[in-house]
Amino acid sequence: MLPVVSIVGTSGSGKTTLLVKVVAELKRRGIRVATIKHDAHGFEIDKPGKDSWRHKKAGAATVALSSPKKLAIIKSVAREWTPERIIASSNIDPTDTDVVITEGYKTGKFKKIEVIRAAHSSKSICKRDKNLIAYATDTKIKSSLPKFAIDDYKAIASFIMHEIVKKQMTSSLAIVADGKMIELNPFIEDLVTNGVLGMIRCLKGCERARTIELKVRKQ
Amino acid sequence: MLPVVSIVGTSGSGKTTLLVKVVAELKRRGIRVATIKHDAHGFEIDKPGKDSWRHKKAGAATVALSSPKKLAIIKSVAREWTPERIIASSNIDPTDTDVVITEGYKTGKFKKIEVIRAAHSSKSICKRDKNLIAYATDTKIKSSLPKFAIDDYKAIASFIMHEIVKKQMTSSLAIVADGKMIELNPFIEDLVTNGVLGMIRCLKGCERARTIELKVRKQ
Repeated sequence: MLPVVSIVGTSGSGKTTLLVKVVAELKRRGIRVATIKHDAHGFEIDKPGKDSWRHKKAGAATVALSSPKKLAIIKSVAREWTPERIIASSNIDPTDTDVVITEGYKTGKFKKIEVIRAAHSSKSICKRDKNLIAYATDTKIKSSLPKFAIDDYKAIASFIMHEIVKKQMTSSLAIVADGKMIELNPFIEDLVTNGVLGMIRCLKGCERARTIELKVRKQ
Repeated sequence: MLPVVSIVGTSGSGKTTLLVKVVAELKRRGIRVATIKHDAHGFEIDKPGKDSWRHKKAGAATVALSSPKKLAIIKSVAREWTPERIIASSNIDPTDTDVVITEGYKTGKFKKIEVIRAAHSSKSICKRDKNLIAYATDTKIKSSLPKFAIDDYKAIASFIMHEIVKKQMTSSLAIVADGKMIELNPFIEDLVTNGVLGMIRCLKGCERARTIELKVRKQ
């Protein structure tokens, strides 16, 4: 599993504004970031009239749009995918990502930084959440947690590098069974990693493989 | 690997027009379709100013946008992903897809239907391709292959159901090693499928797992 941190806060508190500044700052420091945005109300992403939009509108369950520098996938889902599932599946690639920053999963299990903007609301929505690790705010908050100025994206980027990227080890294995991510202890992780690697590296063309994605389906 | 067919033809021949009619017709018949559109020139998919667009613009390598009914992933790639890789990775889910229809991979290895529209060009671009299985055209073509009227999407949908969906078995295993899809013979497929299933079904919560996605990375 990749290191993950969530930027949380009430709607309108300035989560996106802070997140994009932090992402840009991390990128400047050579950190490769993936983001997950939660949109409870649904979204329209493609441009009406474009070929890929026409594919989806015609009823394709999944539409992939592939170009030399970008890949986009738009898929209908029966039930909302959790961020854990999005991260564990190949949709976010651990070989080209150092940290995942999610926006808007306030009930999720990841470490969280809460944005509180006084003009909007000065109450903490994650006060009792043991995964809350800091505040970004323009007001006074009673808490023993680290507090950052709401626009101090450089200090927040440093905090994320220190507390998230360096402390949370990127593990070597992710397993999703029937759409649900499986939690693993280090022993099982080692066992399965080496078992799968041992098997696959026997195949022609895979002798030196370092990243293996495998999908099994049995009726 | 899922059954795949490509709709090919010169630019402007009417590939998308035919494809969307065929997708809608297959959907009416209960077939779940995924499509892949090849765009050699790059694309802009998100709406400027939207949060997910701001994430990407700030420098996130991958942006996921998740809602109760739809999931979108937009990622930067160092090299264009082949349709084989898109299909083999979790980006197209074999548990909710019956057939993949690609648009615009004329040099690919999949079975192909070529669209030829006289007003545009009456030459076949895949005449010598042994994977070409039919033409959809409004002109006369010298060929022993099946020919359909360019707007006869019902007959083309039936042809795809018969020649692609029913004939190409959906296999139970896909392996991508370092980004390259590995071809498997039935023996290896069985061996790895049962090896991985046997191992994973020993884990708590996975006893009855039918679909397993696994990602291993070893430095």
